[in-house]
Amino acid sequence: MPYTDLNPPVRTLLGPGPSNVHPRVLRAMAAPLVGHLDPAFLQVMDETKQLLKFVFQTENNLTIPLSGTGSAGMEASLFNLTEEGDEVLVAVNGYFGERMCQMVPRCGGQVRRIEAPWGQAFDPDQVEDALQEGMVKLVAMVHAETSTGVLQPLEEISEIAHRYGALLLVDAVTSLGGVELKVDQWDIDACYSGTQKCLSCPPGLSPITFGPRAEEVLLSRRTSVGSWYLDLSLIQRYWGKERTYHHTAPISMNYALREALRLVQEEGLEARFARHRLNQRALVAGLEAMGLELLVPEEYRLPSLTTVRIPAGVEEARVRPRLLKEFNIEIAGGLGDLKGQIWRIGLMGHSSRRENVFLLLSALEYLLCDEGFSVPRGDALEAAGQVYQSS
Amino acid sequence: MPYTDLNPPVRTLLGPGPSNVHPRVLRAMAAPLVGHLDPAFLQVMDETKQLLKFVFQTENNLTIPLSGTGSAGMEASLFNLTEEGDEVLVAVNGYFGERMCQMVPRCGGQVRRIEAPWGQAFDPDQVEDALQEGMVKLVAMVHAETSTGVLQPLEEISEIAHRYGALLLVDAVTSLGGVELKVDQWDIDACYSGTQKCLSCPPGLSPITFGPRAEEVLLSRRTSVGSWYLDLSLIQRYWGKERTYHHTAPISMNYALREALRLVQEEGLEARFARHRLNQRALVAGLEAMGLELLVPEEYRLPSLTTVRIPAGVEEARVRPRLLKEFNIEIAGGLGDLKGQIWRIGLMGHSSRRENVFLLLSALEYLLCDEGFSVPRGDALEAAGQVYQSS
Repeated sequence: MPYTDLNPPVRTLLGPGPSNVHPRVLRAMAAPLVGHLDPAFLQVMDETKQLLKFVFQTENNLTIPLSGTGSAGMEASLFNLTEEGDEVLVAVNGYFGERMCQMVPRCGGQVRRIEAPWGQAFDPDQVEDALQEGMVKLVAMVHAETSTGVLQPLEEISEIAHRYGALLLVDAVTSLGGVELKVDQWDIDACYSGTQKCLSCPPGLSPITFGPRAEEVLLSRRTSVGSWYLDLSLIQRYWGKERTYHHTAPISMNYALREALRLVQEEGLEARFARHRLNQRALVAGLEAMGLELLVPEEYRLPSLTTVRIPAGVEEARVRPRLLKEFNIEIAGGLGDLKGQIWRIGLMGHSSRRENVFLLLSALEYLLCDEGFSVPRGDALEAAGQVYQSS
Repeated sequence: MPYTDLNPPVRTLLGPGPSNVHPRVLRAMAAPLVGHLDPAFLQVMDETKQLLKFVFQTENNLTIPLSGTGSAGMEASLFNLTEEGDEVLVAVNGYFGERMCQMVPRCGGQVRRIEAPWGQAFDPDQVEDALQEGMVKLVAMVHAETSTGVLQPLEEISEIAHRYGALLLVDAVTSLGGVELKVDQWDIDACYSGTQKCLSCPPGLSPITFGPRAEEVLLSRRTSVGSWYLDLSLIQRYWGKERTYHHTAPISMNYALREALRLVQEEGLEARFARHRLNQRALVAGLEAMGLELLVPEEYRLPSLTTVRIPAGVEEARVRPRLLKEFNIEIAGGLGDLKGQIWRIGLMGHSSRRENVFLLLSALEYLLCDEGFSVPRGDALEAAGQVYQSS
C-alpha cells in the first residue's frame, strides 16, 4: 500500500468554510517548529492574543485561540459557563442553534429553547417574552447562522438579557473578521469563532473571548468544568503570565492564525467588512438577475454567506458536483430542514474577491443553462458589474 | 501595533515534544486547502486511517486522528469508556497518570489509583492485587511516561486486566511510531497518542484506536458521552462511510499527519524502532561517560525520552537556557516531583538522529565545564561513537 505524494486539487472555496487561505498564511504555517514553551512561541502567543482582541473589538483579558475547531469553542463556552441544573435559553433558527441544544445537557444544563423559522432572525421581543417566563443563567445566540445565512442583530438582545440578569453567549463562527462584531460595545459576555471562515486560516483553532461577567462565573463555579481539555481556568494559566503547562499548543496552527490576523489588521476592520458587503451585493445582484431567489430577506442577510433557493427543475445532485469537477469551485447544499432546497455560497475572508464573484456567476450560468434551466445570458455578470461600478 | 513577519528561530528540538518536523511534512501542510467533504479530502482521510492502523499495528476499524492534541485523546478515551459511577483503575507513576486521575471524575467515573515511584515501572502483580480488591471497568496505563522516561511493559498487564473483566486503556503519546507498540497482539482495547512526538508532525491531532470491546462499550452506553466534541460515536460517522458532518476537520494538520505517517511507512516500523534504540544508547553512553546518572534503570528506559539527574552543583536554571540561547537546542526540565532534579532529553522521530546526539553531547560537555562541573573532555563523544561503531 504505497501512497502517492499529496497533491490536492486547487479549489476555489466558496462554501460555508473553509475559505481559501492567503499564501502568506500557508507560508507562516510551514515555518520551523519551536517548543510550546519557547520564548519565541510565548511571544507569538502574546501577539496572537493582542490581535484577537483587535478583531473581537474587545479589551477582554481572556481572549485566546482554543486548540480545537469552532465546535470546541461552542463546547468550551457552554461547559465553562454552565453547571448542573443551570438554565440556558437557546435561540434556534438553524443547525448551530440546534447543536447548542445538544451540548447543554451534556454538562448538566437545562435547555429552554425558542425558535424562529430557518432563514429568519429573532425579534428581541421573543427573547424578552422567554425571559419573563423565568430566569436563565445564559442566553445563547448565533450571530451568523452558517446553515441559513441569517445575520442576527444583537445589541437590543444584549440589553434585554442583562436586564434579566442573564449572560449573553454569541456564536460568531461565520462573522468574526468579516462582519461587524463589537464584543465590548454590544456588551457580549462570551463569544467564540473558528479560524477557517472570515479569518481565512486553516481550520483547527477556535478564537474565544470571555468578558468580566463570564470570568466571574468561572471563578465562582461550585463544580469542575465538564471537560478538562476545554477548562478555561486551566488553559488561561498557560496563556497568561504563569505559563503553566496544560497541553501542547498546536504550534503551526498558531503561526497560521497570527499571520491571518496580521492580514486582517493590515486591511483594517472597516475596509474588510465593506469588502465582504460589496462582494455579496454583487453576487446577489447576479443571482437575482439569473432569476434565482434568495432565502433570507435583505435586512438579515449575512454578508459572508449567501443562501439561494435551488430553482425548480434543477437537480441539486448534478449542479454542485459539476461545479466542483469542471470548475474546481466548492459551494455547499443545505443542512437539516433546508437539505436539497438551497445552495450556500460563502464569500469569506480571502475568498471574498471580485474575481470569485465573476467566476462563480459565469460558471453557474453555464451549468444552469446546460442543465436545462433557462437563464438570460450575460445578465448576471452585467448586474454584478453594475454593483461594482456604482460602489 | 504593527507586528513583524513571523521568523521563529531554527531550533534542534530535543525536549519531550514537539520534535523536529521533516521538511516534507511542512511542505505537505502548506498544500492548497480543500473542503472537509471534498472527495480529495475524503481520500486523505481514508489513507490516513490505513496508515494509522499500520503504525498502531491494529486492524481496529475505529482508528482515526482526533481534532485536538494528545490530551484531547486522553479525555476522549476516558470520557467515551466511562459512565457515571464506573470504576477506573489508574496507574500513576508520573505526571500523565496523575492527569488521568484528574479527568476521570469529570465524566462521573470513580478513580481507584495505584502508585509507583516516579521513575519506576509497575509490576504486573501490583495491578492484579488492585483488581482483586474489586472489579473495575477500565485499567488505564501510561506506556511511555513523558515526565519520567519510563517504558511500561504491557503484555502481562493486558492479560491480567482481561482476566478480571476490565478493559485496558493505554497512553502511547510518547511511544507511537518510535517504540514497539502492538495494539492487536498485546490486546489493548483503547489507545491514544499525539502527533508531535515520535511521529514528528506538528502538534494538533491525537491518533486514537478503539478495539471491538471498546466499541461495544460505546454502543451499550446508557448515557451520552460527557463531551460532544469528543464523542467518538458522532465522530466515527464522519470518518466512516456515512460522512455525516460533525465538525470541520483540521485539513492542513491532516495533510501533515498523512505525510508524517508516509515517512514512517517508508522507513519501516522495525527500522524506526531500532534507530530510536540505537541513538538513545549512544546518548546514554555519552551522558554516563560525562559522569551523569540516569533516572531510570536500563530495563525500563524509554528509547524516545531519556531522563538524567542534574549533577550536584550545577544550576539547572542556567544550563538549559544557555543550551537554548547559545546552541538553539531545546531540552526540558522535570515536572512535578522531579522539578529541578532532572533533564528530559527527547530523541523522537526526525529528532532521533546521530548528528543530534553528537551535537547535544558536545554542547552539554562545553556548558557543564563552563558552569564549573568537572567533565572529562572528549569521553562523551568517544563513548557515543563506540556505540555506533559496534552497532
